[in-house]
Amino acid sequence: MIRNDGRAANELRDIQIEKDYLIHPEGSVLITVGRTKVICNATIEDRVPPFLRGQGKGWITAEYSMLPRATESRTQREASKGKVTGRTMEIQRLIGRALRSVVDLESIGEKTIWVDCDVIQADGGTRTASITGAFVALTIALNKLYEDKKLAVFPIKEYLAATSVGVIENVGVVLDLNYLEDSTAAVDMNIVQTSSGEFVELQGTGEEATFSKKELLELLEFGEIGIQQLIQAQREALGELAEKIGGKRGDAK
Amino acid sequence: MIRNDGRAANELRDIQIEKDYLIHPEGSVLITVGRTKVICNATIEDRVPPFLRGQGKGWITAEYSMLPRATESRTQREASKGKVTGRTMEIQRLIGRALRSVVDLESIGEKTIWVDCDVIQADGGTRTASITGAFVALTIALNKLYEDKKLAVFPIKEYLAATSVGVIENVGVVLDLNYLEDSTAAVDMNIVQTSSGEFVELQGTGEEATFSKKELLELLEFGEIGIQQLIQAQREALGELAEKIGGKRGDAK
Amino acid sequence: MIRNDGRAANELRDIQIEKDYLIHPEGSVLITVGRTKVICNATIEDRVPPFLRGQGKGWITAEYSMLPRATESRTQREASKGKVTGRTMEIQRLIGRALRSVVDLESIGEKTIWVDCDVIQADGGTRTASITGAFVALTIALNKLYEDKKLAVFPIKEYLAATSVGVIENVGVVLDLNYLEDSTAAVDMNIVQTSSGEFVELQGTGEEATFSKKELLELLEFGEIGIQQLIQAQREALGELAEKIGGKRGDAK
Amino acid sequence: MIRNDGRAANELRDIQIEKDYLIHPEGSVLITVGRTKVICNATIEDRVPPFLRGQGKGWITAEYSMLPRATESRTQREASKGKVTGRTMEIQRLIGRALRSVVDLESIGEKTIWVDCDVIQADGGTRTASITGAFVALTIALNKLYEDKKLAVFPIKEYLAATSVGVIENVGVVLDLNYLEDSTAAVDMNIVQTSSGEFVELQGTGEEATFSKKELLELLEFGEIGIQQLIQAQREALGELAEKIGGKRGDAK
Amino acid sequence: MIRNDGRAANELRDIQIEKDYLIHPEGSVLITVGRTKVICNATIEDRVPPFLRGQGKGWITAEYSMLPRATESRTQREASKGKVTGRTMEIQRLIGRALRSVVDLESIGEKTIWVDCDVIQADGGTRTASITGAFVALTIALNKLYEDKKLAVFPIKEYLAATSVGVIENVGVVLDLNYLEDSTAAVDMNIVQTSSGEFVELQGTGEEATFSKKELLELLEFGEIGIQQLIQAQREALGELAEKIGGKRGDAK
Amino acid sequence: MIRNDGRAANELRDIQIEKDYLIHPEGSVLITVGRTKVICNATIEDRVPPFLRGQGKGWITAEYSMLPRATESRTQREASKGKVTGRTMEIQRLIGRALRSVVDLESIGEKTIWVDCDVIQADGGTRTASITGAFVALTIALNKLYEDKKLAVFPIKEYLAATSVGVIENVGVVLDLNYLEDSTAAVDMNIVQTSSGEFVELQGTGEEATFSKKELLELLEFGEIGIQQLIQAQREALGELAEKIGGKRGDAK
Repeated sequence: MIRNDGRAANELRDIQIEKDYLIHPEGSVLITVGRTKVICNATIEDRVPPFLRGQGKGWITAEYSMLPRATESRTQREASKGKVTGRTMEIQRLIGRALRSVVDLESIGEKTIWVDCDVIQADGGTRTASITGAFVALTIALNKLYEDKKLAVFPIKEYLAATSVGVIENVGVVLDLNYLEDSTAAVDMNIVQTSSGEFVELQGTGEEATFSKKELLELLEFGEIGIQQLIQAQREALGELAEKIGGKRGDAK
Repeated sequence: MIRNDGRAANELRDIQIEKDYLIHPEGSVLITVGRTKVICNATIEDRVPPFLRGQGKGWITAEYSMLPRATESRTQREASKGKVTGRTMEIQRLIGRALRSVVDLESIGEKTIWVDCDVIQADGGTRTASITGAFVALTIALNKLYEDKKLAVFPIKEYLAATSVGVIENVGVVLDLNYLEDSTAAVDMNIVQTSSGEFVELQGTGEEATFSKKELLELLEFGEIGIQQLIQAQREALGELAEKIGGKRGDAK
Repeated sequence: MIRNDGRAANELRDIQIEKDYLIHPEGSVLITVGRTKVICNATIEDRVPPFLRGQGKGWITAEYSMLPRATESRTQREASKGKVTGRTMEIQRLIGRALRSVVDLESIGEKTIWVDCDVIQADGGTRTASITGAFVALTIALNKLYEDKKLAVFPIKEYLAATSVGVIENVGVVLDLNYLEDSTAAVDMNIVQTSSGEFVELQGTGEEATFSKKELLELLEFGEIGIQQLIQAQREALGELAEKIGGKRGDAK
Repeated sequence: MIRNDGRAANELRDIQIEKDYLIHPEGSVLITVGRTKVICNATIEDRVPPFLRGQGKGWITAEYSMLPRATESRTQREASKGKVTGRTMEIQRLIGRALRSVVDLESIGEKTIWVDCDVIQADGGTRTASITGAFVALTIALNKLYEDKKLAVFPIKEYLAATSVGVIENVGVVLDLNYLEDSTAAVDMNIVQTSSGEFVELQGTGEEATFSKKELLELLEFGEIGIQQLIQAQREALGELAEKIGGKRGDAK
Repeated sequence: MIRNDGRAANELRDIQIEKDYLIHPEGSVLITVGRTKVICNATIEDRVPPFLRGQGKGWITAEYSMLPRATESRTQREASKGKVTGRTMEIQRLIGRALRSVVDLESIGEKTIWVDCDVIQADGGTRTASITGAFVALTIALNKLYEDKKLAVFPIKEYLAATSVGVIENVGVVLDLNYLEDSTAAVDMNIVQTSSGEFVELQGTGEEATFSKKELLELLEFGEIGIQQLIQAQREALGELAEKIGGKRGDAK
Repeated sequence: MIRNDGRAANELRDIQIEKDYLIHPEGSVLITVGRTKVICNATIEDRVPPFLRGQGKGWITAEYSMLPRATESRTQREASKGKVTGRTMEIQRLIGRALRSVVDLESIGEKTIWVDCDVIQADGGTRTASITGAFVALTIALNKLYEDKKLAVFPIKEYLAATSVGVIENVGVVLDLNYLEDSTAAVDMNIVQTSSGEFVELQGTGEEATFSKKELLELLEFGEIGIQQLIQAQREALGELAEKIGGKRGDAK
């Protein structure tokens, strides 16, 4: 049986990464994965949260939101509700943690990079598209600091991208689920991985279902295929800047 | 003395209205006024707020928000603060009131049209661009109901657009202020007007300043010039649909 | 057709301004406009909000509230709801902005004047009565600073008052709408004006209606009649203090 | 040693109870105790809270608030803080409980009486003045229902009033503490009592102090003196209506 | 008529006070009164709230909460509701006030002792059990400071315990009400008393009922019986530490 | 190098599961894992959340909290803050999702089982201890429904338990991290697994670190060792009831 949009099981949707999308942010990207569109903006702030003050070390934090009509039916705004949902908090924490894993925080000093991921259109995979796009926005912003001689070394150690994999009944293991697939999947896994193949985050969930170790290994294999293509798209978007990442350190481990 | 971006005193910035910008909403528009960009999405809901139930009449309500980096420095999200600011509330109420003034609410029955205006880039005039764009998104959404034979008459009575005018020291009265102008203006006025030249809303404010009746009349004259051009841009964006507005009723009053 | 309370179209309701109404505030007034009653209290605080610190300049801010039974049916307290409504925020911002326009903020130094307007009985026009009463409370409070030699000049440049005008179907343009008129008016306009006839704030709204330029001019004319009478009532309430306002500067522009 | 305002130890401050203070509420009173002034308004609502539905029984609930400048220095509004303080909650609960104890809730059917106590000027004893005034406002509101033949019996069983007593170092036991006394008292006790001398509420507190049984008995004796005078003031304010209370039942127990 | 659990009218339920219940707090106790179980933990913080800074004096504050299933049917968490109820606030304020009355706050310097009372099982009397247990936890924590030579004198002046008494129809005055008794009692009174028999807090309430002076005296007599037994249990729990309390000062007054 | 508490790398801490810990809940357990202690209570409610109404299917949801002094230094209550943190939300969602995966929700009809996990003492692994204990509390509660003939089949399909594994620098892969280990681990992974060895949830995170596929496989192997021992402890705690789980269905897949 084939997928609802005709893709092969291990095939990503079309990816576009548009650099310098907005004029004000230090780094700004519009990432499109299939019909999912996310604006990722990076902001540099000259201080760190209280728990880090005086340690000479930087911080990266993320916020995530969706326009009310990013979704098929309208979602109430979190600002109107007066609180951020648990789902949003989980995603924000995930994006921030993932980005921090590939940045040399010591080298950027007492600065915070805020990465805002605003989903303007959603069709599945918004959190993984956010990470993939946020990495590019972050790289652009940090490069501005580097070009301005405010950083001694280029602080990004490796490429980082994210995708989803899952198990769909009667279809099997698939890569990069769209919304329709995601809402019927027995198992859903988000994978955040670096260019050297290291895992940063692995979140596999069986909602009213479970998965075996054999399935897990297939899921990881599909994830790796997707991650490598996403990193290639990031490189193309970054152009000349692409070569700076991991330059001194080398990609391989 | 001339304006900081070289425009004539009574000159609008460039206007673009991109129809069907997102796939999910019943009406979706990206409006660009100079460097200000607002996504306006209209959603149809099959019920009205409690205070209107049982009256057989529809309602139109608006929500307004800005991406954190729509602005030059990052603005904290209202969702993170846990509340909507006074400025946002004022703008939401203004947009809703303005749109309701040109729609025959009885003819749409017990439905609510939600209009979401999300500013992705701000350079002054976000509330007036929101109204101008929201009118187009609303028209598209109501037309869907009309084409689906869910409405007996086309419910929009007239075109509606909004712009700002102001008084700037050493420059005088100007049309369509950008952010730099807005932040130095002695007097700031938002005008919402219909195609027949009727006022819907007039909000003039002297922040630590005042204005005379003579200045008021000049402001209104400049406003009218801008409004008529904005309505022309709305007509072009709407294409064939443009003719339905005020069709039976006639534009003139 | 005549008005529901027998007044002429351009006739204000009875005005009373009772000075030194409460014992604790630096300035305290009970203003009565027809059946609308508002307690206006001014408080002097020896610091300014964060955005003004270090600029050697003062600030004036307002808060507005209604007793639950100021209105015909009971209104839930905003404290119980846990948030201030959009209407209240709009009014608070309006009162503060209006008062700031006639005060020389540089001359009062780094002080904030809080003006609390608490409506104890409402019958239309509560926001304009608040501004008119708040001006008197503010004058008394600033005069205390001046008498105590804490200010080099008397900081109030001109008188300031506010009233409402509107268009009522089958009645036409009217001045100082009571609640019944307000709730049926097609057009509603709040005017804040100084003793020299300058506008500070003009907010005209057609709720599901519009208004022409000809109507606008009539509305402004009626507004001016009301404003001048309100300023006369302020002068009488202030007694000797009345002469200090605009003394050095002269009223006329 | 005598009291700071020259009163005898067992002397109340001046009491005034002004009936029909505001026009909208079903019962409205301005009570003045010395310099403390509280507006008490009663509202009748034709339903009960969820926990009482279907039991054919009524409910009485109270809300309490102070104007920001009721106090010597300005107190932040609870609406601005977004929450009601613990002190306010305690007082609201006390007022409601006290009033319920003298009303035959079964006889009023599924109605809620809201009693709003808004302190416009505070000089100690605001909670006890609120109870004493609220009793009168409640009586007027319930009498309207009774006069309209909506109640079969007059539902108030007895008079109810409240006062404070305390122990002040170097002065001893005193009745009806003003703010200055209250802030230096070692022991503070609020007493709510009926015309037949029964206790409804007794709240004695030693803040960083304690009190003996002997002191307790003196405190109660002073309280009774005050309560009887307050009930006399209530009778006078109620005029003809005064005789209806406890009519059928008799005051004595 | 006898009580629903077979106790005599003036009989306490079984008391257990388990010292050092948890490992992290500076003082930790599990108190069991009948089927009511409360964990009381004391935390020492090296600063005082803003209103006390610079006075060289300490502070004691309490927080109170119940597990959702401490009660027979599940109670919604206050964290999920986003606010603390009035009942909780009243109890927290009572516990803090009571504890402060027997501690020499000057002698502990600028420190705050937080006492957390978490009810894990509720069967009436949770606030009085909290006070009785909190006293022991507080004593243990303050003794740590004393043993570490951080305090010059042992700062606790007297023993302090709390219990409830009440009037139940057809039963009369009773001591230490369980939940079933509490929910049917006509009069409910909480008594906080010291080892020398002084009152710290007396809160008697007739919910839809009243009580006479004669009943009051009986209630106080029963209270005293309970308090002395509770203090005995505290002494036993404290072991050697028991002798330090009121050492220099002597128990009797 | 050995672990800080002397355990072998693949050794669990001591486990105790005390059944029927509290008297009110339908299922109640105190689980102790080393020094971590969690009270898990299950409540049965006869309705489902709105999104499930009318589908004839049940729901399981969880809430998680910590006492302020469960931790080494005091943590502010979420109720006092007025909101639930992102960490808490993540954990609550995880516990609910995990439990739902092994229950036949169709067979329990339109009921919600609330599982409250309250950590009274924390030393690492509170979320996994919560899941392991919650499973037992849930089983007891569902068994009550089953014994009362309210369920046709015993609805639990398999045993479910959770543990953590991680990578610690200079130590390597370890099982069941205590707090000290957790706060220094380079990689942290939570594993929720069933008695048949299927995964329900896998959450591996490198905080400022990454992990290879080889490390992942070792982590999973250690996890499985722990899970099987935890399930054995659950069986022992459940006693006779243990045999009902997966009875008809068989454990193996």
